[in-house]
Amino acid sequence: MDEREALTMLAADLDDAGDDAAIVDGLVVTTDMLHERTDFPDGTTRYTAGWRAVGASLSDVAAMGARATAAVAVYAAPEFDREELRAFVAGASDVCDAVDAAYVGGDLDGHDEFTVATTALGETDDPIPRSGAESGDAVCVTGTLGRSAAALELFDAGEHERANDLFRFEPRVAAGRALAADATAMMDSSDGLARSLHQLAEASACGFEIEGDAVPIDDAVDEVSDDDAERREMGLSFGEDFELVVTVPDDRLDAAVERCPTPLTRVGTVVDSGVEIDGEPLPDRGFTHGDD
Amino acid sequence: MDEREALTMLAADLDDAGDDAAIVDGLVVTTDMLHERTDFPDGTTRYTAGWRAVGASLSDVAAMGARATAAVAVYAAPEFDREELRAFVAGASDVCDAVDAAYVGGDLDGHDEFTVATTALGETDDPIPRSGAESGDAVCVTGTLGRSAAALELFDAGEHERANDLFRFEPRVAAGRALAADATAMMDSSDGLARSLHQLAEASACGFEIEGDAVPIDDAVDEVSDDDAERREMGLSFGEDFELVVTVPDDRLDAAVERCPTPLTRVGTVVDSGVEIDGEPLPDRGFTHGDD
Repeated sequence: MDEREALTMLAADLDDAGDDAAIVDGLVVTTDMLHERTDFPDGTTRYTAGWRAVGASLSDVAAMGARATAAVAVYAAPEFDREELRAFVAGASDVCDAVDAAYVGGDLDGHDEFTVATTALGETDDPIPRSGAESGDAVCVTGTLGRSAAALELFDAGEHERANDLFRFEPRVAAGRALAADATAMMDSSDGLARSLHQLAEASACGFEIEGDAVPIDDAVDEVSDDDAERREMGLSFGEDFELVVTVPDDRLDAAVERCPTPLTRVGTVVDSGVEIDGEPLPDRGFTHGDD
Repeated sequence: MDEREALTMLAADLDDAGDDAAIVDGLVVTTDMLHERTDFPDGTTRYTAGWRAVGASLSDVAAMGARATAAVAVYAAPEFDREELRAFVAGASDVCDAVDAAYVGGDLDGHDEFTVATTALGETDDPIPRSGAESGDAVCVTGTLGRSAAALELFDAGEHERANDLFRFEPRVAAGRALAADATAMMDSSDGLARSLHQLAEASACGFEIEGDAVPIDDAVDEVSDDDAERREMGLSFGEDFELVVTVPDDRLDAAVERCPTPLTRVGTVVDSGVEIDGEPLPDRGFTHGDD
């Protein structure tokens, strides 16, 4: 089984396992693991690693429309260097501060590959599911897409400082809270916009019609991409951007845009079936964690 | 830095990081990572791995005297086999059931070594610290010690079924709850009784006088140990048993024993300084996770 099949099987087995996070009595809990080889390119600082790893779990809290409360991490590495550890904890603490959550520590573990397991907690009485999108709703994304794809190119090119900046994203907790009042369905874009749309389409039994020109692609992508095809791939499919993908009834869109503290861009419309961009099928392709 | 030095440094840096677990507004959260090479000997079933990994985190909740509410896990492996995954989830679910908590899923992750990251949650308004032991208190342990040490010998000997049985421990959540009313200090014995006593001694600024014959060593240890020295090592120092080590005022010991749903054995007395067994120094030696 690949990771997606396995996750589908487990979701069917476990009642309380939620969409991006599990919910128990209003308590949101979500956990992730990241590895040096697959998730932290050469040049990633430990500060960025701490920020990004904890941020990825906080993004899952955001995707439920929940308030973030706390996070913990296990830091596993072949050795424990004082400055590296302190930098990691500073990054983890700072990303928690950015969303009004508390970083409350975790554990250390000897392991041959630098590996981080993070857990974030949140609270909500009214989680936003993936399953509520209805035909005619607007589909929107927060922020810009392609930052992580661009960061990887910059890591490769040795431009580590800019790459690290792009790699540290602000988890969209405040946006998720602001959108919770209007959203019919929501998830984060960690697997890429294209795959997120397919997942929302499956959960909501709907389709999407996306306008290619409307997709907000980060300026950094323009700098590093060679042509339009690469630019589009980086913006639509690469993923790892941790923006929110959200559907909102058309007549509430203006209010949602106004309430949302992060730029919210309409990229298309919910339709009955099919996931298309500019009238052509949008392939269900993106980043599957662990496949690469 | 070794793991203990690093943990000490981090504890000094982070206000909310607790003893066995962190506490935020009465919510207990604790996280761990286990690996095939260091934690799951050849012959460990995935059912046992799920039970034991989640159980280790639940034991940290127990050590705070807290109620356990929920647990999640990240299952990282080179491949996802349907039966192995189902067995893991069954073990994780069953150990949660055993302590009235809910297993609410987690995530999957591709990784070259089978690795599990677990997080357990609990609740308490009145956590038991490591720092409250006072001279004259009785020091006690729940259950028996040496089960995991004996299990390792049985794994080596190919007696996998019995080894798996010994490897699946019941997290002492109910005992921790029952002892919370009387305990002055508490932790779990995951690093071994000897090291746990040294950690309690440091946190409480006290010492211990242990009676060797009083230490409740598991029957399985008698079967696999070659001589008294080995038996003692397996019972006192090996660790990974996840029993509770607790101090209780002498005049409340009988009531605590009665209330505790698990056998509670007095192994000695809190003294002003020094950690001794039968009048001889008890070395601060045991299992440091990641050192081996």
